[in-house]
Amino acid sequence: MAKVTPELIRKLRELSGAGMMDCKHALEEADGDVEKAFTVLREKGIAKAAKRAGRATGQGVVEAYLHKTSEDYPPQVGVLVEVNCETDFVAKGQDFRKLARELALQVAATGPRWVTRDDIPDEILVQERNLYERKAEQDGKPEQAIPKIVEGQVEKFIQEHVLMEQAYFREPKRVIKDLIAESISKLQENITVRRFARFNVREE
Amino acid sequence: MAKVTPELIRKLRELSGAGMMDCKHALEEADGDVEKAFTVLREKGIAKAAKRAGRATGQGVVEAYLHKTSEDYPPQVGVLVEVNCETDFVAKGQDFRKLARELALQVAATGPRWVTRDDIPDEILVQERNLYERKAEQDGKPEQAIPKIVEGQVEKFIQEHVLMEQAYFREPKRVIKDLIAESISKLQENITVRRFARFNVREE
Repeated sequence: MAKVTPELIRKLRELSGAGMMDCKHALEEADGDVEKAFTVLREKGIAKAAKRAGRATGQGVVEAYLHKTSEDYPPQVGVLVEVNCETDFVAKGQDFRKLARELALQVAATGPRWVTRDDIPDEILVQERNLYERKAEQDGKPEQAIPKIVEGQVEKFIQEHVLMEQAYFREPKRVIKDLIAESISKLQENITVRRFARFNVREE
Repeated sequence: MAKVTPELIRKLRELSGAGMMDCKHALEEADGDVEKAFTVLREKGIAKAAKRAGRATGQGVVEAYLHKTSEDYPPQVGVLVEVNCETDFVAKGQDFRKLARELALQVAATGPRWVTRDDIPDEILVQERNLYERKAEQDGKPEQAIPKIVEGQVEKFIQEHVLMEQAYFREPKRVIKDLIAESISKLQENITVRRFARFNVREE
């Protein structure tokens, strides 16, 4: 029989939210396989964690913004944004809420697709790069200049579609990540944008 | 050379939003391959449609709801919902807005995962079904009773996680799709929930 180590028990507890003894028994039954043990727990109706019901990932706030183009017409664009911080003290403060509000307005105004540049799927970057390359070739640009042209256009694509890299709509010379860096410095806590959603009735 | 039919041109126009002659030329260049022709259009900078910028898909409204558990604490749950209808006349009306509001509150209260039962990925249904089957076996249920038990539990899973099938939080005897059916009947227009998002700071 495989050895059920405290490390395995800890892993399964994090995964399942179940108690220590339940986890130990499930791991014994599953021969030390954490995935199998999780299934065992679920089947026994002990595992508390479904995919969505989850553990705390820190403090923060959810902010919403609905954009109306005229008084008698209902909002056609809506934004939801979640901003996280480290303590409820900061989460409850005016400055933090104000930042979340600005970020919601930013998303409404500019329609970014991702939070950070790391969130862009590789295949999209490859596709964009290929497109710019072929365009530069068709435009008859000198071969040695093409890599630089392409990188410039990829960077432009990122600045357009990634929230953190976008120009702040109120002051286009500032970038959103700098806006957040200022709040971090002021509030003395790490602040992250966890996710956003933007619905537009007019878009597919 | 492949024949460029009106059908192909129509398809490419829908895909790209480009003009008829541009589409015809692109299809000729791509030997009648719509995908290739779309790339040709994009490369030439003619295709107007990016993935997100899109054509109208009807009328509607975006509604938001932020849930506060206490006055001095910022919202920890936020919901965005898009509800569509056929005409702006209905979209502008009080009844339609009220329905969208109720749906946002419903999503906040119950946290559904999908809009309709058709939106549940097949692998999730298979996984749930297997789980219920094994559970019934372990519980020593008679073999011929198991299919019926399993189907009942799958139906319960759907009623819990699918917005349209959920019990309405204000009147648990009514189901959300009946609530919408009543609005359809009253407003004499088709009404659909296009999408929703629900963020909870406390959840993974």
